[in-house]
Amino acid sequence: MAGSSFGEVFRVTTFGESHGDGVGAVIDGCPPWISLSPGDFMQDMARRRPGTGSVVTQRSEEDRVEVLSGVFEDLTTGAPIALFIRNRDVDSRPYEILRRLFRPGHADYTYFTKYGHFDFRGGGRYSARETAARVAAGVVAWKILEPLGVKVTAYTLELGGIRAERMNLDFIEESPLYCPDRIASQRMEEAISNTKKEGDSLGGIAEIRVKGCPAGLGEPVFDKLDADLAKAIMSVGTVKGVEIGAGFEAARLKASENNDPITPNGFGSNWAGGILGGISNGDEILLRAAVKPIPSISQGQDTVDREGHPAKMIFTGRQDIAPIPRIIPVLEAMVKIVLADHYLRSKTIP
Amino acid sequence: MAGSSFGEVFRVTTFGESHGDGVGAVIDGCPPWISLSPGDFMQDMARRRPGTGSVVTQRSEEDRVEVLSGVFEDLTTGAPIALFIRNRDVDSRPYEILRRLFRPGHADYTYFTKYGHFDFRGGGRYSARETAARVAAGVVAWKILEPLGVKVTAYTLELGGIRAERMNLDFIEESPLYCPDRIASQRMEEAISNTKKEGDSLGGIAEIRVKGCPAGLGEPVFDKLDADLAKAIMSVGTVKGVEIGAGFEAARLKASENNDPITPNGFGSNWAGGILGGISNGDEILLRAAVKPIPSISQGQDTVDREGHPAKMIFTGRQDIAPIPRIIPVLEAMVKIVLADHYLRSKTIP
Amino acid sequence: MAGSSFGEVFRVTTFGESHGDGVGAVIDGCPPWISLSPGDFMQDMARRRPGTGSVVTQRSEEDRVEVLSGVFEDLTTGAPIALFIRNRDVDSRPYEILRRLFRPGHADYTYFTKYGHFDFRGGGRYSARETAARVAAGVVAWKILEPLGVKVTAYTLELGGIRAERMNLDFIEESPLYCPDRIASQRMEEAISNTKKEGDSLGGIAEIRVKGCPAGLGEPVFDKLDADLAKAIMSVGTVKGVEIGAGFEAARLKASENNDPITPNGFGSNWAGGILGGISNGDEILLRAAVKPIPSISQGQDTVDREGHPAKMIFTGRQDIAPIPRIIPVLEAMVKIVLADHYLRSKTIP
Amino acid sequence: MAGSSFGEVFRVTTFGESHGDGVGAVIDGCPPWISLSPGDFMQDMARRRPGTGSVVTQRSEEDRVEVLSGVFEDLTTGAPIALFIRNRDVDSRPYEILRRLFRPGHADYTYFTKYGHFDFRGGGRYSARETAARVAAGVVAWKILEPLGVKVTAYTLELGGIRAERMNLDFIEESPLYCPDRIASQRMEEAISNTKKEGDSLGGIAEIRVKGCPAGLGEPVFDKLDADLAKAIMSVGTVKGVEIGAGFEAARLKASENNDPITPNGFGSNWAGGILGGISNGDEILLRAAVKPIPSISQGQDTVDREGHPAKMIFTGRQDIAPIPRIIPVLEAMVKIVLADHYLRSKTIP
Repeated sequence: MAGSSFGEVFRVTTFGESHGDGVGAVIDGCPPWISLSPGDFMQDMARRRPGTGSVVTQRSEEDRVEVLSGVFEDLTTGAPIALFIRNRDVDSRPYEILRRLFRPGHADYTYFTKYGHFDFRGGGRYSARETAARVAAGVVAWKILEPLGVKVTAYTLELGGIRAERMNLDFIEESPLYCPDRIASQRMEEAISNTKKEGDSLGGIAEIRVKGCPAGLGEPVFDKLDADLAKAIMSVGTVKGVEIGAGFEAARLKASENNDPITPNGFGSNWAGGILGGISNGDEILLRAAVKPIPSISQGQDTVDREGHPAKMIFTGRQDIAPIPRIIPVLEAMVKIVLADHYLRSKTIP
Repeated sequence: MAGSSFGEVFRVTTFGESHGDGVGAVIDGCPPWISLSPGDFMQDMARRRPGTGSVVTQRSEEDRVEVLSGVFEDLTTGAPIALFIRNRDVDSRPYEILRRLFRPGHADYTYFTKYGHFDFRGGGRYSARETAARVAAGVVAWKILEPLGVKVTAYTLELGGIRAERMNLDFIEESPLYCPDRIASQRMEEAISNTKKEGDSLGGIAEIRVKGCPAGLGEPVFDKLDADLAKAIMSVGTVKGVEIGAGFEAARLKASENNDPITPNGFGSNWAGGILGGISNGDEILLRAAVKPIPSISQGQDTVDREGHPAKMIFTGRQDIAPIPRIIPVLEAMVKIVLADHYLRSKTIP
Repeated sequence: MAGSSFGEVFRVTTFGESHGDGVGAVIDGCPPWISLSPGDFMQDMARRRPGTGSVVTQRSEEDRVEVLSGVFEDLTTGAPIALFIRNRDVDSRPYEILRRLFRPGHADYTYFTKYGHFDFRGGGRYSARETAARVAAGVVAWKILEPLGVKVTAYTLELGGIRAERMNLDFIEESPLYCPDRIASQRMEEAISNTKKEGDSLGGIAEIRVKGCPAGLGEPVFDKLDADLAKAIMSVGTVKGVEIGAGFEAARLKASENNDPITPNGFGSNWAGGILGGISNGDEILLRAAVKPIPSISQGQDTVDREGHPAKMIFTGRQDIAPIPRIIPVLEAMVKIVLADHYLRSKTIP
Repeated sequence: MAGSSFGEVFRVTTFGESHGDGVGAVIDGCPPWISLSPGDFMQDMARRRPGTGSVVTQRSEEDRVEVLSGVFEDLTTGAPIALFIRNRDVDSRPYEILRRLFRPGHADYTYFTKYGHFDFRGGGRYSARETAARVAAGVVAWKILEPLGVKVTAYTLELGGIRAERMNLDFIEESPLYCPDRIASQRMEEAISNTKKEGDSLGGIAEIRVKGCPAGLGEPVFDKLDADLAKAIMSVGTVKGVEIGAGFEAARLKASENNDPITPNGFGSNWAGGILGGISNGDEILLRAAVKPIPSISQGQDTVDREGHPAKMIFTGRQDIAPIPRIIPVLEAMVKIVLADHYLRSKTIP
């Protein structure tokens, strides 16, 4: 009800703040006998913290996941799995000057309205730090999906208006921006450098592809697979738009173009993005998320303090210029959580 | 779990099929002492069935809502409100030839995969007919929001590639396509006529505006107001994309452009679309939904039958050419349901 | 949230009032391909309305269940099943004198406190009439359990202090009081006759046995099978106590007596009542429910009116003397609903 | 769905095992601005670990509650509150000989059936250790109830067949068994000593009283306040029966005795136990729980090993002789959690 849980059968509850002890997740409903050890989390946690070169992620975080429960001798038991990631780099002092100002583009104002306070120390509960818990939970979801042959890949499709054109999915992990187009990746890096000098930041578009998803996942009416995916993705702080398959382009197509023909060998096209009537059709699931620029910038911005007096906000701390490389593993995690949940839900139809 | 319910406090469960007895909704959690009578439903039910002229909605439906429970002497009692809308126009014969064919662009194939059958009679549970129950539930949601001064307006922003430019919201109800631009509305009507002759259909974009929404609605993390709105809207059958505020345009803005300045008199712009960190900020909420073209067209389309043999699908029944005028009240209803739910949820913070 | 739903996978939502159009239930999560027709409901609905002789049920109700959705050609489709039972015998006039008085032992006072009104016409939402919808839902639950070889039997163990001793489960359906002891049944009938003359009413104890329940149903910690059964049974209006297995007697046993030995051929006793650690062990499930006497009696009782002035309540309408025969199929239904839900839940552990 | 969560608005999710890192709880939905510091937990955690003299609790546990999130400067923020209690005394070696044997009266057998394994090290997830997390969550619930003037008191009504008769609630905390009757308390201690010599254990009955509960808590139909209390109490491992008010005694009363008269000064009696129609009536809430004897005893018991071969179980570790003093704060905690949840739920009726 208070919104910290997601999923019905595979149910993830996150907790924690950016400047408290740490962040974590409790996963209830993970089946037993799945191998899981602290090492399984390392790769995805590191991907959320690229740190390659000057372009991204200046904050150093070493995110080690402690498994507090639910695993015995490296196997899940069926009991809830509690994961905890301690905050290590939590110098709150740079935030002191923000104590009384609402940061534009952040949730300070709305939290203050709702709760009567806001966490000036980097956002607290509504910091991007919370997504570390999602990535950790996504690793567990992945353990359920992997044996089914499912493959989830997210990447930067567009950043600062520069769009990947020549796609080479093998290049993604080589790009510090998780961009599958080598040339576009370089241009994006340059754009980040230039924008940094301007004291500004950039948004972008992420694309997520799911190969090998079994047909039949998703519930009719409200819990459609695409509806739950849209919620999962929109629940990531900086996302402002979600598309499935043709997405907004579908609005300009005619049915004779947009309908995917069905042939004895499968669908003849995939404008639907792998989902029909809210249920996966076995084809590739294709999603896109629009990500707004990170609001904390060093340019001066107009705002007010708690009493409503006008003020100027100038952010001086370390901050990413673009959310989009760090958000990639978060989006992957959310998609994995939705799929693991719907996969287990599908088992209730005997 | 099986996906027929939406909302936590104001909880709507729909039931029914296009060619059964009817469709309905049970609403649990509506407060008592709200005036509600069968007449309250007429306008919205009729808007879902525009029927003005030749361009839309050739199927005649008179959708009278029966209130089976939860209301005594025209006041809600706090008990669940059951609404029922009988099907009146359910000649299943034209569908007989579809009995063995999967209709491209529809959920026949995925339902068959999931449930081992599909409802050839116009979609059954996954027919657009189900949305009549949503519109009825939206009327009850509206009864909660109206006294707060909330105003929800949806309209056709784009249809068949023709975009409304000169917006006059007062014109919406005059336009058979709920389009706020008189000239664009006429051009959209022409496009529909032409497309009908081609035996094809059109998609479009709907825009939804919410004025007067109180600040503070929405829960952090997963049940963000925008996340729940995205789910609600994406759960409407033909929607393939959802945007909040600047939406996909935000991906191309810099933070200095996209951040809404905060002034003593409110926000200086509204790229955020009225939601920050998942919580309403008191500004106008702005959403857009991409709607795909209605898949049932009279042009021949490639498909297969249940046994996988190739076949040609030619749809000959009555069918809308564009989903977008009829979907407008459905989108409004979903937004109202989300807002009523989050409004009541916000009461749990004393 | 507002409490009209029960179950997670097999989810029952009831609606309706005693003196409105009728009562009903929506079941979401019933698997497809289960045979279900209106005739399936007749026996259980009739058992809730024994009407044999003068001792019980003077109100004539013919409870025909309409299946409004979710069934096509007598098979469930996987879509929500809406059931509706029209009220036929709803003369509200005898209740007019109750319009301003809180009936002792009923929920008038607490509803008035909570909702600002109460339904003087026989209880409205909190009338026993609501249980007709539970019995109908129980029939659908039963369709899931029956093929597994599960058998649910409830009966009157005690009524007005008279206890069944010589148990003959085959006699249950012969007894107008569903009592398995012929002699006790006759004595109970006499007690009812005598109590009726006194203008009073009687309570009793029902016992429920479940044979053939698969081992492994129930979730650890909060959703233990016995915890959910206790909630299900206590949610029936007049129940004031629930026991599993040895129940309160277990408080007086030593572990050497109360522990059920485990042998190569199964458990050596069944003090546990078929549930260990909240999970079914494959043995017979044994439950007991304490039922209070029906509060509406013709003896004068002290009460107050809405303004708090003292008044005398004398109930003159038709009313059962003992809840316990009519409550038997309701308790069976609730047990079936819990078991069907937990059976489907158990499928999520692959 | 997997059963580790309880409550709708005030939602408690527990995790952890007896012989892992520790146990914990995440509470989502606690309002902001409630004072909460680690010291608040000490008293209740200590009460769960009486350790007074030889009669009870030979295992030494110092249960310090770490508050991992949701609290800033000793005030709740509205964010989820994660609590963690490290296991300190987890020598698993004595349990090694149990590795292959199902302990009678425990959940080893049913867990093995459900999950394909069981935790021989003292029960793991189904150990009474899990209740430490409930007690910690109960402290937070209490912080919501205390300002309302609610008072929850649980005590030992009966132990080993010895019943408290001369009640003095002020004596409860003086009694090592939380028994309000000085003489009965001494006799219970003797019974425990004697039973220990026999290598056996004892059960009992706990009684819980709630003073000052506001009228109007509880939802009609399924989520009745007494139904949720019954579930909460039955979800505590060793409970086999629950009563409200007159409980099983109500089955032997007539309505003229059992109905509580309503007077201008309140109810004339309280057989209902403070709840009518599932909603609190403002009177004292009265509950009783039947607790079975602790199954682990040093007498030899018949059992089988994992392969089904007969074996003898002799428990040699430290173990309580009676669950009932340690269970008292657990039952209090569960009642507090239910009341806090229903109190916040009641706010959704404006």
